[in-house]
Amino acid sequence: MDQQYPSQLLEKAVQEFSKLPGIGRKTALRLVLHLLRQGNEDVSEFAQSIERMRREVKYCRICHNISDTEICPICSDVHRDVHTVCVVENIQDVMAVENTQQYQGLYHVLGGIISPMDGIGPNDIELDSLVDRVEEGTIDEVILALSSTMEGDTTNFYISRKLAHTGVKLSVIARGISVGDELEYTDEVTLGRSILNRTPFGK
Amino acid sequence: MDQQYPSQLLEKAVQEFSKLPGIGRKTALRLVLHLLRQGNEDVSEFAQSIERMRREVKYCRICHNISDTEICPICSDVHRDVHTVCVVENIQDVMAVENTQQYQGLYHVLGGIISPMDGIGPNDIELDSLVDRVEEGTIDEVILALSSTMEGDTTNFYISRKLAHTGVKLSVIARGISVGDELEYTDEVTLGRSILNRTPFGK
Repeated sequence: MDQQYPSQLLEKAVQEFSKLPGIGRKTALRLVLHLLRQGNEDVSEFAQSIERMRREVKYCRICHNISDTEICPICSDVHRDVHTVCVVENIQDVMAVENTQQYQGLYHVLGGIISPMDGIGPNDIELDSLVDRVEEGTIDEVILALSSTMEGDTTNFYISRKLAHTGVKLSVIARGISVGDELEYTDEVTLGRSILNRTPFGK
Repeated sequence: MDQQYPSQLLEKAVQEFSKLPGIGRKTALRLVLHLLRQGNEDVSEFAQSIERMRREVKYCRICHNISDTEICPICSDVHRDVHTVCVVENIQDVMAVENTQQYQGLYHVLGGIISPMDGIGPNDIELDSLVDRVEEGTIDEVILALSSTMEGDTTNFYISRKLAHTGVKLSVIARGISVGDELEYTDEVTLGRSILNRTPFGK
């Protein structure tokens, strides 16, 4: 059922909001009416922050992470370990790893994952630039931190083949039962892997 | 836990999005990253539609409904019944009643509801203008279509007192069990009222 809006301007704004993922027309209307109750300047600030972000944000020339500068803050941080590179699918994953505060190396953001079903091949993601980086010779270890899915496994395998000739050390983040998980409810593949990849107690 | 964003521009956009009702930082980030993947013009259109809506949208001089013009399309529609006015809390309620396609009269949007708990008194909503409209003499019936809450009842009562001297016919939308509701699960107040306000069968 299509709703009748009393204003074309409102209609247009609702339409634009409902293009966003997970936002239906009802939520869009609620958000638009909320903005309508805000001050003119507040709404301008909202709109301009988005436009400006889209127009001015850059991708780091080295790791392809999002950045305000040509080289992102992580790549230009002299305190970080330049010999280790963590390969992730996207920007959110960089933030997720950073939040653990357990990693001091650099990143490489693929900007996607090989997925034949979605028509994403090796040339659609930042793979060649990873090979180039490794070939430069300063990187000792590449940590593959992709999702534990078929696409992640495929991409891991493809990267390992592409990097084989460089002799760089390749590792994959550990897979096993999550902290806090009950054994009873863990799926058998995960549980099986976590038994095979058991680590010495007390480490 | 506060996340570290790799870009101030991104941070700012996420911050602005998370000011919206029901949007947390995680959803805000997802929306912003979605916009980042869209074309520059698409994002401009999104941002400008919002800014423009806020700046240019008007409120109808007669009924206070949202409008692109001084007088809204409903108030200026010559085919509508100008002798009946339906009093609603907000713009969404106008749309809800319009969607029923059961009402041909005009509206009066209060822009709120009397709620001492939230500090909203009779002077904070469009009550005086309703009284003025009724005093002009063309309106025969005022239909109160507010929510069935304590605040709605309070506002209904206040309006009835304010309009008493005009002698206008006052009615309230029917309250009872919803269409499709099972009697067993209907709360007793609603059920009690719907028995008291029973209507002749077959109407």
